[in-house]
Amino acid sequence: MKKLINKIAREDCFSFLDRLPGDFIDLAIIDPPYNMGKGDWDSFRTDNDFFRFTEQWIDGFLPKMKPTGSFYIFNNPYNSARILQMLVERGAVFRNWITWHKKDGISASRKRYVNNQETILFFTRGKEHYFDPDAVREPYQSTDRIKHAAKKGILKNGKRWYPNPKGRLCADVWEFSSHRHKTKINGKIVKPKHPTPKPEDMISRMVLASSKEKEIVLDMFSGTGTTALVCKKTGRNFVGFEKNPDYYTHLQRRLSHAHR
Amino acid sequence: MKKLINKIAREDCFSFLDRLPGDFIDLAIIDPPYNMGKGDWDSFRTDNDFFRFTEQWIDGFLPKMKPTGSFYIFNNPYNSARILQMLVERGAVFRNWITWHKKDGISASRKRYVNNQETILFFTRGKEHYFDPDAVREPYQSTDRIKHAAKKGILKNGKRWYPNPKGRLCADVWEFSSHRHKTKINGKIVKPKHPTPKPEDMISRMVLASSKEKEIVLDMFSGTGTTALVCKKTGRNFVGFEKNPDYYTHLQRRLSHAHR
Repeated sequence: MKKLINKIAREDCFSFLDRLPGDFIDLAIIDPPYNMGKGDWDSFRTDNDFFRFTEQWIDGFLPKMKPTGSFYIFNNPYNSARILQMLVERGAVFRNWITWHKKDGISASRKRYVNNQETILFFTRGKEHYFDPDAVREPYQSTDRIKHAAKKGILKNGKRWYPNPKGRLCADVWEFSSHRHKTKINGKIVKPKHPTPKPEDMISRMVLASSKEKEIVLDMFSGTGTTALVCKKTGRNFVGFEKNPDYYTHLQRRLSHAHR
Repeated sequence: MKKLINKIAREDCFSFLDRLPGDFIDLAIIDPPYNMGKGDWDSFRTDNDFFRFTEQWIDGFLPKMKPTGSFYIFNNPYNSARILQMLVERGAVFRNWITWHKKDGISASRKRYVNNQETILFFTRGKEHYFDPDAVREPYQSTDRIKHAAKKGILKNGKRWYPNPKGRLCADVWEFSSHRHKTKINGKIVKPKHPTPKPEDMISRMVLASSKEKEIVLDMFSGTGTTALVCKKTGRNFVGFEKNPDYYTHLQRRLSHAHR
């Protein structure tokens, strides 16, 4: 077991999951293939092949979750609709359909609306789970009104309401720029090591809301290791795997520089 | 047929759909029950009852769509995931998962993220459909940069780009305040006639993007008739039904005051 902790294995999904003990993981953050042809790992012969693969990894990781465990799964809305059914059929508990509003979509289209979002399914394995809403409050939006309210309160439905100094409760539509728009040099986009890395601040939100320090987080389909990196910085333990040698080398370098 | 056009029938969903000819509707805007107990019409004994009812109205309206027809279906994300499967199984073509970001969610929760969105599934009956992206452009967000670009252009991936004077292409995350937050008097929310009316500007967007003047729009589960109202204002023909006598009286009053 110790051999697994706080390392990313250079290994295939299924052989790695086989090695994990059951009822072991407190939180899983899962960034699987989307079947959108972003690389060899993201290309499937048919839609059926893709959804069969998806069912296989779901059946692989679910028994490794603690009964109180939480998990987040990235995908596009279309695939997420089907993944949601798969999870409900297996008795997992739906918590949120989180919309990641990227605000910088690029696939302009004239036959439908421009795609500007991805989906994050938030589920728990069972009815009881840990969630810390205060760890992930967001800034209030109307600052003048909030400043006034902080002094005198605002009358809301007959009660006097004061804003929380840490901000408002976090909602289920998340606005983070996609990584590619954060890494511009002289206004030009710099091609990242991985085509679809997830923003670190977004991963932090999930880790802070749904795990405690020292708990075990599964970084599933690790890519360039953003989840592992966040775990290192926030004092969580992690396990994970990545079989692509280029991503693996890159994540090792990132992890070796990370400190709490 | 003439008896149906530009009127809302005070009638049940299934008896109304039975009366419609096949291959008749160019655009359907469908605001069905969500199974969230907002009224008698929104309460079902079990989830299975709700999804059975949902399948029934899907099988009722789909054959009434023209082969080139488009339709939009409101619901919460959880139900929409299942409705999406039902539509795909029946050969309808997925176009967009539209997220309506309401920015004023109220169901605060401490065990999950605050719900702040509804879903609008955009499908077409077949592969060919009408869509006018220029009718629904949105204002650009970074105004200074856009002002500059309008004069001199911006170098983008090696090409000089000029903004479209009508704004940018409309994306699949929509920000409209929910109706209840628009109808405040002295800061207090005024209870609307219907618990969940849809914003008129949001319905306008769908009508303008997905139908031409004089085409036939189905306002399905009419409620207080917002879709019919938009059709009257934009020169589309409409058909529809509402069986609740209170909503029916209210929609008749609204429609009688509407002009192009």
